[in-house]
Amino acid sequence: MTTEQPFADNWPGERPEAARRLLGAAVESFASRGFHATTTRDIATGAGMSPAALYIHYPSKAALLAEISREGHSATLALVEAAVAKSDQPREQMRLLVEDFTAWHARGHTVGRIVNYELRALPEEDFAVVAELRRRIEDTVKQVIEDGIAAGVFTDTHTRTAARAITGLGIDVARWYNERSTETPEQLGIRYGELVLRMLGAV
Amino acid sequence: MTTEQPFADNWPGERPEAARRLLGAAVESFASRGFHATTTRDIATGAGMSPAALYIHYPSKAALLAEISREGHSATLALVEAAVAKSDQPREQMRLLVEDFTAWHARGHTVGRIVNYELRALPEEDFAVVAELRRRIEDTVKQVIEDGIAAGVFTDTHTRTAARAITGLGIDVARWYNERSTETPEQLGIRYGELVLRMLGAV
Repeated sequence: MTTEQPFADNWPGERPEAARRLLGAAVESFASRGFHATTTRDIATGAGMSPAALYIHYPSKAALLAEISREGHSATLALVEAAVAKSDQPREQMRLLVEDFTAWHARGHTVGRIVNYELRALPEEDFAVVAELRRRIEDTVKQVIEDGIAAGVFTDTHTRTAARAITGLGIDVARWYNERSTETPEQLGIRYGELVLRMLGAV
Repeated sequence: MTTEQPFADNWPGERPEAARRLLGAAVESFASRGFHATTTRDIATGAGMSPAALYIHYPSKAALLAEISREGHSATLALVEAAVAKSDQPREQMRLLVEDFTAWHARGHTVGRIVNYELRALPEEDFAVVAELRRRIEDTVKQVIEDGIAAGVFTDTHTRTAARAITGLGIDVARWYNERSTETPEQLGIRYGELVLRMLGAV
């Protein structure tokens, strides 16, 4: 079973090692106690640092949440766009998209929960950035549905609702998936891909 | 648009008025700040009572969470069983079940979030009770799928995964639905019902 967590130890981009450790510790604290009950001291302690050392890298715990949320959403958008770029057939685009999106939320369920369930704790400006990334993810899914309907391979449907259902299915995996789940992230992705293609009436 | 929240003001069962007020205040506090960051004082204040008066009714904030979670899950199980009892045709049972389950999580999104996203904060014994209610909800959905496959009206599928996907779709509605959503809970239920029937290959 694949259990590695995206970003758990290896955050993308150029970052001082201390910042990486702080992000990892923030993920652990937010996941176990929620954002509001976590203190900067909890995070610093988790990273083996003093609160003063934390402030060198992040002005607040909200800044850490914002970075986790931006990275998580950017990675998800990149994954969705990459899946679509792999084919010019809406049916195949959707299958790849759902497989990867689902597996990502299973593999990265801890980050996935924070990223999706602590949105309202984000400072206003960060929320706007993340909301835009979410809109682009959903619009990409919606475009594939519309292309499939236009090509006659998907049944005509309320595309906004279907896009919401498809992204929601994947996001919900972060809620319940854990290391004891009997399906691997990849197996679950394949099964959800089949369910979604049927949901769209794919021929 | 229907915006009333199940239980917000009118908790089921025989309860002193003070207990109802405390449950309502606990829902508000848990929803806005999370369980861990909420104090019994927050809840008492929200209910217009002293912390001492709270303890007459509930020994802890965990006892309030447990009651909210049990009531929410019991109501959802009752709703799912009632939908199944309305027909003897799996296709119709599933349509009614998804419509009601989805509309419930839209209408009761605040309670729905607490009930589904604060499970790990439950005391062990209460968690066991709630886990059993969740198992029965999912088993009911799974049974309808199996009946439909046996009757030849649903496509053969991995029933446990399909049941998880169907309940997950409805639960996920509590995450994103709010008073500004353009679909009413009932409209959303109807659309999700159609998507799920297609997902099952219903004929």
